[in-house]
Amino acid sequence: MVRLKTLKIPEATVMRLSLYSLFLEQAEEEGKVTVSSGEIAEGVGVSPAMVRKDLAYFGEFGTRGVGYNAGDLNQQIRRILGLNREWPVVLVGAGKLGSALALYQGFLRQGFHIVGVFDNDPERFGKRLGQISVQPVSQMEEVIRKRGVEMAIITVPDEAAQEVAERLVDAGVKAILNFSSKVLNVPRDVVVRHVDFSVHLGVLTFNLVLLNRNNG
Amino acid sequence: MVRLKTLKIPEATVMRLSLYSLFLEQAEEEGKVTVSSGEIAEGVGVSPAMVRKDLAYFGEFGTRGVGYNAGDLNQQIRRILGLNREWPVVLVGAGKLGSALALYQGFLRQGFHIVGVFDNDPERFGKRLGQISVQPVSQMEEVIRKRGVEMAIITVPDEAAQEVAERLVDAGVKAILNFSSKVLNVPRDVVVRHVDFSVHLGVLTFNLVLLNRNNG
Repeated sequence: MVRLKTLKIPEATVMRLSLYSLFLEQAEEEGKVTVSSGEIAEGVGVSPAMVRKDLAYFGEFGTRGVGYNAGDLNQQIRRILGLNREWPVVLVGAGKLGSALALYQGFLRQGFHIVGVFDNDPERFGKRLGQISVQPVSQMEEVIRKRGVEMAIITVPDEAAQEVAERLVDAGVKAILNFSSKVLNVPRDVVVRHVDFSVHLGVLTFNLVLLNRNNG
Repeated sequence: MVRLKTLKIPEATVMRLSLYSLFLEQAEEEGKVTVSSGEIAEGVGVSPAMVRKDLAYFGEFGTRGVGYNAGDLNQQIRRILGLNREWPVVLVGAGKLGSALALYQGFLRQGFHIVGVFDNDPERFGKRLGQISVQPVSQMEEVIRKRGVEMAIITVPDEAAQEVAERLVDAGVKAILNFSSKVLNVPRDVVVRHVDFSVHLGVLTFNLVLLNRNNG
């Protein structure tokens, strides 16, 4: 039972790894070579024990009493997260939010290349979004197959989200970032992250209610 | 040690509660009165045991062998999450993403009212975003105090994020939804949700790498 069950790693750990990576990048930019778990913890807003526990899922990092080499640790985390390579991504739904996301520099910085933006509104066909133009959704499957796309971002209206998800999965997509409010029904081997912002706001209000109760 | 430590409820549980709420709303819209933990689980993509465990943090819901009343359970979840009231929210940074978010209908549907959008670019002052206009960031503190705002959304460039966060906190904000890539340093009694999309993409790629390894 000592076997590493990678599939059992808590999602919260995986999300924190991304935050550690962002923090380490900032530390590197500021010229820091070595960081302690305490510094990472303070920068990200968790306890040092949690930083050490999260990293322990993946092996031994750093040197006791010295800390971590910021650049090395960041590279290892990025490898764990699969961020040490480039990922082609398609985006479906070129409305306001979709257009803003297609132009979002943070994706590119992390290795995510938007290789296609699709919509079913002819008025949006050909609209330039950075390096690419909006294409009819009828061309979506071809682009996914040709480019070997495994990741997609859904920013279509709620009522279209499930159908779009099914088409994406049929074409070979294995991971979906869902910005609609619709809870998607997909096969078990497809990963969905639901980014309805109200989910995040729910976490905030939950904590606000607790804070206000404890202070009140 | 049997005392309910509400502060120790896993964040993943709180996020899933929001998903359960979205699913229950959909079920209600489809005319369903009763739902089982199995139906909720399938709709949201987790195990029935996880649904029951998440709900058990907050008490006894539903009737054994019958299931949950969709409307009742949703109301109780929304009360737990603090979503049974309206929350005034300010948004700082009226660029592409900020403008899209200010117009995002999902916020309003969940009870979040954007009562102010602020920017430091004079060219954006007065720009209409739905019911409100972009104001100079110099007016931010006054609006926060007058409206009793506790929640804020940050969509400014990374280099401005920390300063904006500090001003928000000084003015009374207790919860921040941070869309910048900057990891924010705030007092311990302020809740921050980091919504850099690349964090979500990191979770997707982590799972994709696992999937591909297991299939390969």
